Amino acid sequence: MKLLSMTAHVLQIIRRAKQPLSKTDIAAATGLSVSAVSEHVERLMNEKLIQISNIGNSSGGRKPKLYSINQHAGYIISIELGTSAVRVGITDFDCNILVSHGAPVDIGEGPEKVLSYIHSIVSEILDKAQIGKSEIKGIGIGIPGPVEFASGLPVSPPIMPGWDRYPIRDFWSRHFDCPCYVDNDVNIMAVGEYAKGLQFEVDNLIYIKIGTGIGAGIIYNGKLYRGVSGSAGDIGHIDVGKDVVCWCGNRGCLEALAGGKAIAAKAKDMALAGKSEFLLERLKSNGEITIKDVRMGIHSFDSASVELIRESGALIGQVISSLVNFANPSLISIGGGVAEIGDILLAAIRQGVYQRSLPLSTRNLLINKSNLGKAAGLVGGAFMTIDQLIINSIEKSDTLLDLRMKSW
Amino acid sequence: MKLLSMTAHVLQIIRRAKQPLSKTDIAAATGLSVSAVSEHVERLMNEKLIQISNIGNSSGGRKPKLYSINQHAGYIISIELGTSAVRVGITDFDCNILVSHGAPVDIGEGPEKVLSYIHSIVSEILDKAQIGKSEIKGIGIGIPGPVEFASGLPVSPPIMPGWDRYPIRDFWSRHFDCPCYVDNDVNIMAVGEYAKGLQFEVDNLIYIKIGTGIGAGIIYNGKLYRGVSGSAGDIGHIDVGKDVVCWCGNRGCLEALAGGKAIAAKAKDMALAGKSEFLLERLKSNGEITIKDVRMGIHSFDSASVELIRESGALIGQVISSLVNFANPSLISIGGGVAEIGDILLAAIRQGVYQRSLPLSTRNLLINKSNLGKAAGLVGGAFMTIDQLIINSIEKSDTLLDLRMKSW
Repeated sequence: MKLLSMTAHVLQIIRRAKQPLSKTDIAAATGLSVSAVSEHVERLMNEKLIQISNIGNSSGGRKPKLYSINQHAGYIISIELGTSAVRVGITDFDCNILVSHGAPVDIGEGPEKVLSYIHSIVSEILDKAQIGKSEIKGIGIGIPGPVEFASGLPVSPPIMPGWDRYPIRDFWSRHFDCPCYVDNDVNIMAVGEYAKGLQFEVDNLIYIKIGTGIGAGIIYNGKLYRGVSGSAGDIGHIDVGKDVVCWCGNRGCLEALAGGKAIAAKAKDMALAGKSEFLLERLKSNGEITIKDVRMGIHSFDSASVELIRESGALIGQVISSLVNFANPSLISIGGGVAEIGDILLAAIRQGVYQRSLPLSTRNLLINKSNLGKAAGLVGGAFMTIDQLIINSIEKSDTLLDLRMKSW
Repeated sequence: MKLLSMTAHVLQIIRRAKQPLSKTDIAAATGLSVSAVSEHVERLMNEKLIQISNIGNSSGGRKPKLYSINQHAGYIISIELGTSAVRVGITDFDCNILVSHGAPVDIGEGPEKVLSYIHSIVSEILDKAQIGKSEIKGIGIGIPGPVEFASGLPVSPPIMPGWDRYPIRDFWSRHFDCPCYVDNDVNIMAVGEYAKGLQFEVDNLIYIKIGTGIGAGIIYNGKLYRGVSGSAGDIGHIDVGKDVVCWCGNRGCLEALAGGKAIAAKAKDMALAGKSEFLLERLKSNGEITIKDVRMGIHSFDSASVELIRESGALIGQVISSLVNFANPSLISIGGGVAEIGDILLAAIRQGVYQRSLPLSTRNLLINKSNLGKAAGLVGGAFMTIDQLIINSIEKSDTLLDLRMKSW
């Protein structure tokens, strides 16, 4: 490994650690000598990429300095694009969201229109936060479909008409002089949760997003796993053996039975069938039932709403149990809009998993609600972007990070 | 990386390559300079771990020497233990099986009795092949249950009564002065197929063993994936939504419906119900129906046998389609005793997968019968063992491979 790439490697270790690290910690993690670590640390300090965070405990002599990423090293634009909404955030270099804004969007209007709209939101919040374009070091976007990560192109995204192989990166390069990276939305949520949401070390994590649709993001041995065609984690169309037609053309898909859209449709049916006064009232006053009404129903002790969520959780648990038998992960993290419903859903999912999974597979398994919640996507988008900036600096240039960052 | 571990790294690259490699090839694979590669190659040649295989094509000047593993560097004992049979083989250092022997065994008789019996087989074939104990460099065993790989201990193996945490390694150290490694049987089959069965480069492979039971071995990014508790790939108990009780206590497990035992039981039912003259005749003459009778039925154009295998393949295909959506692998390799039935089973599996998997997930997917067939376990056991010998030599000593091998 070249000297410079080892410096970048040290930077990755510092920023990926859960706590600030001493030079001895870094030496242990890299296998380098402490004096070699000192050189890399000095270079990173000169480049203002890391900072002295605080002074650690001493094992006798002088207390060691502890290093962490310098959050002021630059700003990242992070975008989480869904089928019907977008969230835009500006983060610092430690993935803290400084300002963010959400807005409804119809992804079916095509990339030019949707991206232009997102760009107007970005300009607005940059103005509001008084951050100049030149201070933006990278842009990360999560989209609701498979992505060829190396090129940043959407690949046959089934629910994004007009986006197939659309060059999203080129759009942003017209407006910003920094790299842009595109990934699947659930992937960046998984990355966010893994990097910043966990209080303990976990190597194998499956993040399950339960929103309108259902998807999974997979972290294996500390790295995002994308699969051969970039479609790994697409669990929404796994067969749960029920006779309901899905938009994909198949029958019995998990998403068609347990996703947010399916729950809302069933809630409407229940309201119309006179099985829930609460839901009927919501339907009358709004003309429609959404997942939010079901959530409200649960908080109002509406038994129909509870039943719907329990049914949904049981089906999701059934699919997760197969994944647990297959992949034997340490942690299942449940996120996405529907997951905000909380304990009733989580309990039903857990019950489904423990009923069907092999005892050995669940011996060390945790099934938790995402700690980052709604922030997972924006945090993960920023984390993925900084990761790529560092990796690209190793591959492309002989200065640290991208050449554009020389001024640091 | 230390010099010695880099030499071992070069050895791994040479032995894992599909063809003999030139120094330039090795330099490209490692990022080392050709002159640095030369040093490592010289050391490996001196230790007689590699050999000059043949002379390659020249791009102008002198034709380069090509290097491969020296198959004569030592012998490995490879053991594949099933619930009702064992196969023992002696391989050379390139995992070629030199001699092998299979025998029935009842795993329920417990480790002491079963292992002593296996030891008697080992002694017999060593005698027959005129190979001395001191020439054995390692022992590899695959067992039909989860294994804590680092310690070599079986972990709560459900179909191996009396084996839980039995120190299999210690048994062999009483008889042989070389390391022993224990892994799950499907894992070593996957390793064997990946290392020696493929004619092309594949990074993500799921090996499916269809025998009495059904299991999977997972290769991700070129490495065996074991999961957190060593139980990854345990797909036999995934729910396929049918009302049949499995020995595990759940209903609708894949194994209880599509495994070799289930097929034989259904075949017997069909024979007794008068649905197949062929199977009834087999039942009358043998008093029992096994999977072999069904296989013979297929070759005799017995439609009941064909139906059974198609049903089994469809259910297996249904489960594999979920795995394909989740893991998006490049290759599904079908092995195990029942897989020997061949094309009818394979066609039914493929049909099930293509019907339920997302188009993008199957775009680059191959579903093939295992190329190594019955040899996968023995080859994989040897490959895994040599892998560990090299890895341990890096961790434990400052001579190449284990200290015991100094004499080479």
